[in-house]
Amino acid sequence: MRIALFQGTPAPLDVPGNLERLQQQAHLAAERGAQLLVCPEMFLSGYNIGLEHAERLAEAADGASAKGVAQIAQAHRLAIAYGYPERGNDGAIYNSVQLIDARGRSLCNYRKTHLFGNLDRSMFSPGADHFPVVELDGWKVGLLICYDIEFPENARRLALGGAELILVPTANMAPYDFVCQVTVRSRAQENQCYLVYANYCGAEGEIQYCGQSSIVGPDGSLLAMAGHEECQLLADLERQRVLQGREAFPYLEDLRKDLH
Amino acid sequence: MRIALFQGTPAPLDVPGNLERLQQQAHLAAERGAQLLVCPEMFLSGYNIGLEHAERLAEAADGASAKGVAQIAQAHRLAIAYGYPERGNDGAIYNSVQLIDARGRSLCNYRKTHLFGNLDRSMFSPGADHFPVVELDGWKVGLLICYDIEFPENARRLALGGAELILVPTANMAPYDFVCQVTVRSRAQENQCYLVYANYCGAEGEIQYCGQSSIVGPDGSLLAMAGHEECQLLADLERQRVLQGREAFPYLEDLRKDLH
Repeated sequence: MRIALFQGTPAPLDVPGNLERLQQQAHLAAERGAQLLVCPEMFLSGYNIGLEHAERLAEAADGASAKGVAQIAQAHRLAIAYGYPERGNDGAIYNSVQLIDARGRSLCNYRKTHLFGNLDRSMFSPGADHFPVVELDGWKVGLLICYDIEFPENARRLALGGAELILVPTANMAPYDFVCQVTVRSRAQENQCYLVYANYCGAEGEIQYCGQSSIVGPDGSLLAMAGHEECQLLADLERQRVLQGREAFPYLEDLRKDLH
Repeated sequence: MRIALFQGTPAPLDVPGNLERLQQQAHLAAERGAQLLVCPEMFLSGYNIGLEHAERLAEAADGASAKGVAQIAQAHRLAIAYGYPERGNDGAIYNSVQLIDARGRSLCNYRKTHLFGNLDRSMFSPGADHFPVVELDGWKVGLLICYDIEFPENARRLALGGAELILVPTANMAPYDFVCQVTVRSRAQENQCYLVYANYCGAEGEIQYCGQSSIVGPDGSLLAMAGHEECQLLADLERQRVLQGREAFPYLEDLRKDLH
């Protein structure tokens, strides 16, 4: 499977503009042979938008914007993972990521469980105990969002649930570059999973995003890594790398589940 | 607290020689103002020694060699963490690390819980559910051994148990350099703990150790890192770094203990 990752500057509050940008990125990714395009956290609305706008722009997981994303996915025969503010059936607003397949069907929706500081907490309710692992083009895929990946428990939960590929839309900012440079590599390697960390670059209000999005192999190697500019990364997933990784580092097998 | 770390080539089967070497390293560390000296895994006996020798050299945690280490600690007014093959009361042999304080008292003994491949399994029984956290010079200290640190669950267990400093005697070999370069930094940062990773260099039988021992700060920064040669590293622990780390990254507070 070939994966494309879009790193860009947020366009806050401009949902139609972000759908248009998604359409352009999907076109480019499809032209380059990708089967999956991964975008940053809260991509449809921007992230640093405050409660009032988050409430106004929040939509159901099958709302109008989701239908727009599904059309883009179908048009380009490409799966898409994207972040958005979700209005739940319970009325609460969640920081969510949805994975839509190349036929426009929602494969899964994940609500960020580990909220980051006042930024997240001022807008969102935390997700409940739901860490879906679904199949996409023969790969078992799980979702996390930004701060979630900094807790090893979350990626481990997905890996023990069968995930071979973890998609992490994010909005990581200065001075947390360490996460881009070290943490995501450790998470991939300790779980022998591919990991896609799709970040913003540029500024949004007082926030300066730190870019450095990456696609990491199951041995922790950087298959592709962005700098601080807008770009689309590409990498090819190989089944053999997962098998070799799990042979060289049988962590999931050796973990003492009687102790932890 | 000033910490010294000894990285050296193993001297397999030579317990008296290794006690003599420990004495020299303790002398040097004390001269340089250290309060704690950390040595590699199975330092007293060598690591790649096989079952027959491990059985022959295994001693109780309060055996003759432990008394020798205690004398060295007392003589130099220096705490010592060292690896050795332990003969348990149950008759089993464990891959253990003991922490002895500057007055020669054993503060704790840890038996490796996560055994590495046939190398470990051919010699040792796995440790039971015992992850002690003890106080040394006002610092809360926990112990892990080599492969243990590659599982995030183990360091997390210690951090949630109050550890601010994790000592990891190790015998890490090529091609597992990733652990020295990435994993140990991630573990320190994700738990906001100091971490001391004391490895061998050089060869022992067919094993080529990968050196690169390190002392890592609670923000994941490398305070000291060895290359592939014998050396003694030094670093100073600062309470302020732990407090700042836990303020900047409140992982232990933000972890959703209701989910994991």
